[in-house]
Formats: sequence, structure tokens, C-alpha cells
Amino acid sequence: MTAALLEQYRERIRTELDRVVDFWLKYSHDKEQSRLYRTMERFHRPEILDAAKSGLGFSFLVAGPGKCAFCLTRDGRTVKVQRTIFSECFYVMAMDELSRITQDKEMQADAESMMDRLIFWVQTDSSDLSRPQLPGDPPINSMAVPMMLLCLVDQLTEGRTDVAEKYKDLSGWCVEQILQHIQRDGKAILENVTLNGKELPGCQGRLQNPGHALEAGWFLLQYALKKEDAQLQKTAVDKFMEIPFHTGWDKQHGGLFYFLDVDGHCPTQLEWNMKLWWPHCEALIAYLMAYSHSRAPLLLDRFKQIYDYTFSHFSDEEHGEWFGYLSCKGEVVLDFKGGPFKGFFHVPRCLYMCEKLLDGLLERQDS
Amino acid sequence: MTAALLEQYRERIRTELDRVVDFWLKYSHDKEQSRLYRTMERFHRPEILDAAKSGLGFSFLVAGPGKCAFCLTRDGRTVKVQRTIFSECFYVMAMDELSRITQDKEMQADAESMMDRLIFWVQTDSSDLSRPQLPGDPPINSMAVPMMLLCLVDQLTEGRTDVAEKYKDLSGWCVEQILQHIQRDGKAILENVTLNGKELPGCQGRLQNPGHALEAGWFLLQYALKKEDAQLQKTAVDKFMEIPFHTGWDKQHGGLFYFLDVDGHCPTQLEWNMKLWWPHCEALIAYLMAYSHSRAPLLLDRFKQIYDYTFSHFSDEEHGEWFGYLSCKGEVVLDFKGGPFKGFFHVPRCLYMCEKLLDGLLERQDS
Repeated sequence: MTAALLEQYRERIRTELDRVVDFWLKYSHDKEQSRLYRTMERFHRPEILDAAKSGLGFSFLVAGPGKCAFCLTRDGRTVKVQRTIFSECFYVMAMDELSRITQDKEMQADAESMMDRLIFWVQTDSSDLSRPQLPGDPPINSMAVPMMLLCLVDQLTEGRTDVAEKYKDLSGWCVEQILQHIQRDGKAILENVTLNGKELPGCQGRLQNPGHALEAGWFLLQYALKKEDAQLQKTAVDKFMEIPFHTGWDKQHGGLFYFLDVDGHCPTQLEWNMKLWWPHCEALIAYLMAYSHSRAPLLLDRFKQIYDYTFSHFSDEEHGEWFGYLSCKGEVVLDFKGGPFKGFFHVPRCLYMCEKLLDGLLERQDS
Repeated sequence: MTAALLEQYRERIRTELDRVVDFWLKYSHDKEQSRLYRTMERFHRPEILDAAKSGLGFSFLVAGPGKCAFCLTRDGRTVKVQRTIFSECFYVMAMDELSRITQDKEMQADAESMMDRLIFWVQTDSSDLSRPQLPGDPPINSMAVPMMLLCLVDQLTEGRTDVAEKYKDLSGWCVEQILQHIQRDGKAILENVTLNGKELPGCQGRLQNPGHALEAGWFLLQYALKKEDAQLQKTAVDKFMEIPFHTGWDKQHGGLFYFLDVDGHCPTQLEWNMKLWWPHCEALIAYLMAYSHSRAPLLLDRFKQIYDYTFSHFSDEEHGEWFGYLSCKGEVVLDFKGGPFKGFFHVPRCLYMCEKLLDGLLERQDS
């Protein structure tokens, strides 16, 4: 029974990944294209490598202290530079992945030196980011930061023991920082906490981002599996998957809310009750990874529930790819496939990882 | 018939203004409280003046080149400083209004010197705003800027011929800048244009903000009435009211959309199809002012249509004040009355101005 279901999921996910890859072939340069080319036989095609390389015609690096552009014009002029670290994180991922195919040592060194700069900004001195230090806005521990660094370490160290050794302490630091977001006697995951892991006052402190917590969940689980740390595996599932799933799932209309307030107040974000594609991508990966490891039927039920909503609401049967932004009730509100925050990233990463996980599950089922 | 209807509107609007003033008494310092205290007999009460003054316990001015805080903690520490001119515009309005009551010459001088700094930032050198100049993001004419300056000039010059003389050229410049937003052979009002009044490429250039255009409409009409400029009066109504009303009104669910794309594409703003309180406030003022001047029944019909939607959807019958953020279908999505962008400003300004306009209309009806 379960094998047939898993087979069915794999078939749909595999077809969906093919369609999504086709859709984006004429557009973006992204690390996911490099990864698909490198790690999946059927995507080892020159046009996919070309798409991955095409972005290199641009320089994402902007003048000044090693920052990257968030947005470029069609002819490559910088439109926007964010005062955060995230454009630079994506730069590291893209350069690292492509350098693994091209064997370009300079590109690889470039990725690593940006990584070292990121660590300096996060752990030592963030003034290059040009965020003014204001008396009412002290530095905080925002979950996105240790999550992204943990994700980068995971990628940079793949198959490289020397690099793994270099970033060994950093992984531990990231995990510790992420775990500080477990609050309220272990009953809530809060998006922002103080630097010493206490709850912050006001709406900033009460903010929950279920999709983000679920993403942190699978980053942690992946790390804990590698480390064979059973306690951390349990924390990843119980705290970073089950809590955001229970608080984040809309019992009335289905789907995961974008933002919530832990005390049940209304978040100040206008889009708080919308259903976005990426939290659902992260939830699919999280629960399939958790199920794949423990085989607890409950975790497959969760996957099924998220899968049913996701594939019936986000996937565009007619024109391919996924819609990104639905109303609370599940209607498409923004109909573009690529926008300032949506490109060839969350959807293919999700489909790729789910396909791999299902391959593993079905292989073990057969044996 | 019309008189009875106008009487009915005035009654409801007057009651609503009383309720809104009561709601906010324990909170904010705002120029609207000063204005109500100064110009309306029934609000000339010490507790309203106290509320208006209460904000002066804080310093909104932040270190550096004369910028103001956008957001403070409860005990007055700066949380956020925007890289725009708008916090400073509200500072000018608040200081000017309060100084008219207290006769504080220093406060008045403070308002004027901030005004002069604003003009310098807008017309000469904006580097104090700390917005980096990026090659893909050249300076543009964003309608908000000349609108706000025109609004400030109108306030600062009220009853002061010497100040009016000082800013005479500025008003003309603002009007000229606003008129550049009439695009597409006079058939569209676009939010952003080039510095020489041409359409910008991409979604930035295609953006429409109907509430903003309607607000510009009554700013222009007010100016044109003072100047007795019949051509500009006609432009204000035909272009800055009728066009955004026709394109911005949601024929299916009622209410004004927040953002639209002139070519019918989907805007990139997640909240584009939400119904916000303030565009409806501006639309009420715009059409009542236009009707009050021309007495064209069509303009009263427009007012009626907007009034019916606004009072049945935004006003909170139970707890007072207005909800600010509704879904496309008109359900309350964010239930707070005050937030980062909503305070004692648009609602009381709208009710105050509508009451005054109705007073004028009914007076003339009687005579």
C-alpha cells in the first residue's frame, strides 16, 4: 500500500520537476540548475548548463565592501542592494555549485571568500551592511541568519573534508543559535529572539513564520542525521516541524499561513494570512525527510496533507510552474511565475529533494 | 431631496468624527488633534490639546543630518529611520499646527527650517537621506514627493502672506511635477515617471495607486480653487479623480484596489488587491470637494458610492474607529486600529474635511 503511494508521489514529482526545469530553461542562472545538471542523469544536458552559466554574464558584485545586487536591470545595472546578508548567501551557493561542474578553482575560491566575509559580518562586525545602529533597534538573533549559514556550510562541505574541518565550529554555532528560537517552555518557535536567546518585547518578538521554522527543521534534521545525534533529530521534528505545522496550518481553508503572532494577535504584515508557495515547499521536504528517517506513519500523513494542498493549489496545470501567492482561501492573487522573490529556487529544490528521498524510500522498500 | 441627503451625511460624519476623536484621546500626538482643537468649537477642550502635546515628550529628531524617526519605542528610543522624506513631512505638519495654538515662535521656526531642508533634499541634494545612487536605479519623479510638498505649503501658508510669498514658486513646481504623472495620452495616472515626465520601463513605470491619485486630485483642486485656475480645476477632477476612480474601483466586490498595473498585468505588491482605509478617505474628500465646487450630480453619486462602501466596511460599529485593511472581498484581515502606517491621521482628516465641506454646502443650500 505505502509503496504504491510513494511510487505515485515519485511519478508526479518527477514529472513536475521536468516541467519546471523546461519552463525555466530560457531564463535564470541559479545554483539549482547547476545541481540538477551535476547530480541527476536526466538533467545532464548542455542547455541546462548553459542556463546555469548564463547569469555569469552579469556581475552581481557591487562597488564597495563585497556586497551583491539584489536586483539588476536586464542589461546588468544594479537596481537594489539589500542591507542584509541574503543576496550574498545566494551568490555563495551559485558560485559553489557551478564551480563543482566547471572545476573553476577561482570561482570556488570566490565562493569561499564571500562565505568568510559573511561570517565576519554575522559574528564580528556588520557595519559593511550599512544598517545604522539605532538605540531602539538593538542587534537580535533573527532565525534566517543562522539557518542560511548552516545551509551554506552544508553545501560548501559536500564531499570536502578539508572545508568541513574549516567550518566545523560554525555549524555548531548555527545549531545553537537556531535552538534559541524554541521559546515559551518549548511550545513555540519564535522568529526573532535576543542575542542571548530570550523573548523580545512587542510584535517583533511575538512573530512566527511557520514556513521558516519548517525549513529550519529540515536543515537541523539533515545536520543531526549526519552527526548521528538522536536528541537533535527528535528536536528537529518535534519542535521545528510539529509546532509550526500545528500553529501554522489553516484549519478552515487549508494551507500554511505566512505569519502568525504567538499570542493570537493580528500580525502587522499585510500579507500574513496569504498562502505562499515556499513554506509549502519547505514543509514537503521537512516531512518527507522526517518520514524517510523514522517511517512513522503520522509523518507520511502530514506529507500527504501538505502535498494535496500544494499540488492542487500552486501547480499551474495549464502553463507549467507554480503560482506563488494565494489568498487565505486559496485563490491565485499574483499570477506571475518569477518575481522579486520567486525564481528557479524553492520549487526545484523541493521537487529535487523529494524525488531523491522517494528514490531512497522505494529502494529500501524493494530490498 | 439633496439637502436632506447632505444633512444625513453630515450627521453621520459628525458623529463618526466625535467617536474617532474619543478613541484616540489617550494615545497619539498628531497634527490633526491640534487642528481640531484650533478650528472646531466642540473640540476646543484641554484634553485634546494635551493629547496633541503629549508627543512632544519625545524627540523625533535623530542624530545626523536632521532626519526624523519613523518609529520609536514606548520610552522614546529610535527603532527605524526611513530613507525617504515622509517622517520629516509629518514632523513639519505637527510642529506647525501645534505652534499655531501655543504661539511658540521657536516651534514655528523649527517647522519652517525642516521645510527648507526638505526642499533642499528634493530639489538640490538628497545624499542626507542615505539612499545609495545605483546605476540601475536613477532618480525618478515619484508622485508622493511633490504631493507632500504641495500639502505642506498649503498648511504652512494658511493665513500667512509672508510665508505664502516665500513658497510661491515651490507650489508651482509641485503642480508641474504632479501633472507629469498624466500619461498615455491623458488616459492614465502613473505613480512613477522620469525626471522629465516620461514613462519609466518595467513594473515601476506601469504602477498605478488609485488612492494616491485621488489624494493628489484634491490637493490640486484646492490649489486651483485658490488660484481661480479653471483649467487646473478641470484637470484635477477629470484626470486625478475620474481616471483613478474608473480604473481603481473593483466592479465585482466594491472598494478601491491598492495598486494596479496600467497594462493589466499583476502588480508585484502582495497586497495589491486589498482594500485599504486611506484611499477611501482620500476619495471621499476628493469627490465631496469636487461636488461642493461644481454641484454636478454625478460627483455626488461618486461620493455616495464610496461613502456607502466605506462606512459599511471600514467603520467599527462596536469598538469605534476604523479597520484599516480588508481583503479584496471586503473582510477585515488586520484588526488593529493603530499600526506602523495607521494612526490619528487619514480618518480624522477625512471626517473633518467632509464635515466642513458639508457645512458649506448646507449653508449655501439654506441661503
